[in-house]
Amino acid sequence: MNGLAADARPAPLAAEAALTRAGQLVGPALDAAVARLGGELRDPVQHHLAGGGKRIRAALVLLSAAAAGATEADGLPGAVAIELVHNYSLIHDDIIDGDQERRHRPSVWAEFGIGRAIVAGDALATLATQVLLETGHAAGVRAAAALAEATQAMIEGQSIDMAFETRPAITPEECLAMEQGKTGALLSCAAAIGGILGGAPGQVVDALADFGSDLGIAFQAVDDVLGIWGEPSRTGKPVGSDLVSHKKSLPVAIALAGPASAERDELAALLAGPLFGDDLSRASAMIEATGARRAVMAVAEERLAAALAALHRVQLVPGPRAELAAVAHFVTERDQ
Amino acid sequence: MNGLAADARPAPLAAEAALTRAGQLVGPALDAAVARLGGELRDPVQHHLAGGGKRIRAALVLLSAAAAGATEADGLPGAVAIELVHNYSLIHDDIIDGDQERRHRPSVWAEFGIGRAIVAGDALATLATQVLLETGHAAGVRAAAALAEATQAMIEGQSIDMAFETRPAITPEECLAMEQGKTGALLSCAAAIGGILGGAPGQVVDALADFGSDLGIAFQAVDDVLGIWGEPSRTGKPVGSDLVSHKKSLPVAIALAGPASAERDELAALLAGPLFGDDLSRASAMIEATGARRAVMAVAEERLAAALAALHRVQLVPGPRAELAAVAHFVTERDQ
Repeated sequence: MNGLAADARPAPLAAEAALTRAGQLVGPALDAAVARLGGELRDPVQHHLAGGGKRIRAALVLLSAAAAGATEADGLPGAVAIELVHNYSLIHDDIIDGDQERRHRPSVWAEFGIGRAIVAGDALATLATQVLLETGHAAGVRAAAALAEATQAMIEGQSIDMAFETRPAITPEECLAMEQGKTGALLSCAAAIGGILGGAPGQVVDALADFGSDLGIAFQAVDDVLGIWGEPSRTGKPVGSDLVSHKKSLPVAIALAGPASAERDELAALLAGPLFGDDLSRASAMIEATGARRAVMAVAEERLAAALAALHRVQLVPGPRAELAAVAHFVTERDQ
Repeated sequence: MNGLAADARPAPLAAEAALTRAGQLVGPALDAAVARLGGELRDPVQHHLAGGGKRIRAALVLLSAAAAGATEADGLPGAVAIELVHNYSLIHDDIIDGDQERRHRPSVWAEFGIGRAIVAGDALATLATQVLLETGHAAGVRAAAALAEATQAMIEGQSIDMAFETRPAITPEECLAMEQGKTGALLSCAAAIGGILGGAPGQVVDALADFGSDLGIAFQAVDDVLGIWGEPSRTGKPVGSDLVSHKKSLPVAIALAGPASAERDELAALLAGPLFGDDLSRASAMIEATGARRAVMAVAEERLAAALAALHRVQLVPGPRAELAAVAHFVTERDQ
């Protein structure tokens, strides 16, 4: 995504510095939260967390708290809770999708069995609520309520994504609505609870929520492109992984949404069958030929622009606001 | 369990009336909460809830609220939340245990697949938090915090129960500690949040929590007896189901905990292998011959007595207190 709003683009270093700082702040706090779990739960969770993660959601919470005029530390319980929910969803999603690897290592269910992966995820979900309610202040309660709502939207998005797998085709609108829930809700919540914990007034929280929501769609659009055209050595997933698993991602939905044609019917038939080798590269080339890849990148650019605009709708502390923008650029320009 | 504290036993009708009333109050509220879920989640959840349930936990919440001097309706969000958590745990446990039936019907995973059963459970867990935090009052927040803590203890108990399956033997103490978490925590929480939502002072909430905790152990002890010696047409489970699945329940732990002997070694060897037909009836007879069945019933009686004593440690409204006692008798004298 080179050239994306290039004139407004801050240095990638600013984003990397913010993400590193978030990892350093949230890492020990996350470890401390997980240390409260019983041993049978802790082992699979620690296996999962040892795989790392970019801590994007944690960074959004911390930077939003700072952008609201508080310290990053004020956002810490929110950052921990968001990462707990995010990682619980990864652990459960890997079971659901049958993914045996995550970040180049065995997924939790592949290493510990489905049963232990289910309860490990359940434990993290509950721990997230505990961490926020134990803050003992009203903002923590509001953050817990916002997180529960976002978690519910995320679960619903996941349930719709699963239902898509058995449908021959979905519209781009249906796909975007699903991604809004599956990915957008938690990113939106991350920015919003940073604002809540930072003591921001309602309209600032709303603007931060809109920032996160639009960023979530942009993020997912990039993810969908990587799921078909990503470099396996970078993404850690096999080539064309979303096509192999018959995922109805946005590029597929757009490619199949055009006017009826022999090419479209051929692509639909190709995508419905088992895909490997030549079929896989032919399918991805056909999707690209419909203009779907370019259209999805356009969605990412539009949503990134909308996200950045939301940051300028309200009064925010300039430094952290610039860092939020830098992180937004960074996560929509990634190749992994 | 005839003769159990017979002189103090209220009429079973009082318990059945309280459970029926709880079902009538919580049923529509539970339906309303579930109606908020997306369709892909609602279908498996409604399939599960249509199987019914005794609503014991809901009754404990409502009666505890009334015993604290409030109305049963004041406890309603707590009753809904507790039933949501209880049913989420059943949906996930059926996956973990590979149980294809629940209440004489296909379990959720057997009917909808493992993936949909995971997210259906996840949705109910989150909905429970939402219901309590949306009450908008401080007691609802305290109830949500208590529920999260109990849910975490329940998950840990489940994780320990799973770990037991791969161990040759466990001590009765280890088994009781596991059951305290797996079953006791949620029953304890049910009674406690009834008190919290009913505005009870701390020591009353503590007494109600102790009542529920002891009742939970008594309840589980009866469950363990039914899991080996229960009548399949009543329990809805195959004969000796806990032995078939190599569950390390309390009767098994006690039977294997005695002094070393040829009989004990023979029983241990028998329980470790595949069990059906004559082996099954021989194993259950051997466990009974060790006195373990009687010992587990003694645990149930002691814990029921302790539960009833907790109700008399503090000031409670006499009518609802008598109904709590009636429900406690009822659930420890059940044959299903």
